[in-house]
Amino acid sequence: MRTQKITVSVIGGSKIDQEVEQLALEVGQIVAKLGAILVCGGLGGAMQAVSKGAKKAGGLTIGLLPGNDKKDANQYIDIALPTTIGFARNAMVAASADIIVALPGSHGTSCEISYGMVYKRPIIDLGNWDMDGMIKINSLEDLEKKLKLLIDEIVQS
Amino acid sequence: MRTQKITVSVIGGSKIDQEVEQLALEVGQIVAKLGAILVCGGLGGAMQAVSKGAKKAGGLTIGLLPGNDKKDANQYIDIALPTTIGFARNAMVAASADIIVALPGSHGTSCEISYGMVYKRPIIDLGNWDMDGMIKINSLEDLEKKLKLLIDEIVQS
Amino acid sequence: MRTQKITVSVIGGSKIDQEVEQLALEVGQIVAKLGAILVCGGLGGAMQAVSKGAKKAGGLTIGLLPGNDKKDANQYIDIALPTTIGFARNAMVAASADIIVALPGSHGTSCEISYGMVYKRPIIDLGNWDMDGMIKINSLEDLEKKLKLLIDEIVQS
Amino acid sequence: MRTQKITVSVIGGSKIDQEVEQLALEVGQIVAKLGAILVCGGLGGAMQAVSKGAKKAGGLTIGLLPGNDKKDANQYIDIALPTTIGFARNAMVAASADIIVALPGSHGTSCEISYGMVYKRPIIDLGNWDMDGMIKINSLEDLEKKLKLLIDEIVQS
Repeated sequence: MRTQKITVSVIGGSKIDQEVEQLALEVGQIVAKLGAILVCGGLGGAMQAVSKGAKKAGGLTIGLLPGNDKKDANQYIDIALPTTIGFARNAMVAASADIIVALPGSHGTSCEISYGMVYKRPIIDLGNWDMDGMIKINSLEDLEKKLKLLIDEIVQS
Repeated sequence: MRTQKITVSVIGGSKIDQEVEQLALEVGQIVAKLGAILVCGGLGGAMQAVSKGAKKAGGLTIGLLPGNDKKDANQYIDIALPTTIGFARNAMVAASADIIVALPGSHGTSCEISYGMVYKRPIIDLGNWDMDGMIKINSLEDLEKKLKLLIDEIVQS
Repeated sequence: MRTQKITVSVIGGSKIDQEVEQLALEVGQIVAKLGAILVCGGLGGAMQAVSKGAKKAGGLTIGLLPGNDKKDANQYIDIALPTTIGFARNAMVAASADIIVALPGSHGTSCEISYGMVYKRPIIDLGNWDMDGMIKINSLEDLEKKLKLLIDEIVQS
Repeated sequence: MRTQKITVSVIGGSKIDQEVEQLALEVGQIVAKLGAILVCGGLGGAMQAVSKGAKKAGGLTIGLLPGNDKKDANQYIDIALPTTIGFARNAMVAASADIIVALPGSHGTSCEISYGMVYKRPIIDLGNWDMDGMIKINSLEDLEKKLKLLIDEIVQS
């Protein structure tokens, strides 16, 4: 039985439309509801919306910031960790996850997906990435079920 | 008023004697008692002892691991974050702190003190480092008082 | 007029077939022939073949190694630079380039392409990546012409 | 027989007085005269002076920049490599060296000395660091002799 807490890294674009914002918000709520800690890049866009969602559901949020100043974090981050290593921190956002959830995003997000593959983390596809090796999910109901299943497996491993 | 949680990074050697182990244990308890989150390098020696102390007092512990595997963490780490960047993660241990407490240690610890200076974090000296710019403390009572003072300042800033 | 030397980062898989090996060899020769310094990840596969090609044409090769030991470099690396930061060094392989040439590869390569996009380096596509923002090239003749053009622009900027 | 080129990382303060500037200039000349490649942090102060010295003696200079822009390099850098990882690049300045020469400096320099210790590189002390494990040198003549000796050992290893 693992004693460490479960972490779910949610990755997605720093510039997003309302639809993705709503999606991120709901994903954050699901992560928190399942008792997992939300890890993200700590900045704006999908990172902010998913943190807001997690806080709304009473969760704990960690922001792995690229710079060296805690003030760079969005307002929904509980624990701001300035990595100081710029976008090389994408490696850490991926490796720090027990499970990764990928929302729509741009080059930063695809970079984190690549790291997730390299470090062999399960990656749930909520962003039409359609890549081999990702877990395709079509609804929030399915996301919650799949996350619960993966979390149970990790806890018992 | 800051909403983010307060983090205290405790740094010290990975190979320590019983006296330093006892010191680390008590420092961890104080950090947790003051409601701060303990951040450390997540491995053995002072990192393990301080995590054990924090857990004993009901605190939350974060381990910034050099590698990419959560299993590298000592058993008292709640949230294991594999940074993947080796000892370059020392920069992050320092920058992730609101306050740094330096126990006796070797080159890794002095490296983290240097980063603490570069990133202008307050650094409490519990390891006879005797360096300009560190805050010299002579007892655990004084440590608790000083930490409380620094935390209050940060919360109100 | 820029006085710094021109660097071309060639990225590609660490496990490659003979066809890609031959391609990498020829790309290395072209980079060296144009007077640019070859930068790569320093290990095997495409990294080794492109370094071999560059050496064959009298060029200078730099390997940005993930670990901390120069002995990890392939035998065609002149200047081995152990970054110590694991695959987070992919960010550096991309950012250290004036121009990136992408051969076929896997997650590490796509990660470096993402960083190339983030850091706005010109990226030549020799690996059927077919991504928006990359420069599609269909022959080694065209590669040489395009590289020469880009190098001339940088030298004069 | 090692085929890789020898690298000497020279570390020292970014703000220096005329005496240290003159020292750095002469150290750079010695490194180049011995046929080694100069590696440094690529910015101002001792980094600029040592690069100037190396160029004066016909050497090759590499700057491991903290940011992502080659334009941050001082004018004596031949090969600018933006690491993108901020001062975590100090780990790389140390690990990329076959031999480290430490000039007077501040926290960044002491950080690099710590990494040199961690990664077991020989570190020559030209900055009154007076630390166990460093090689104390008292004159530029002795520096040249010692560097030559260390280089010969590495080449033949």
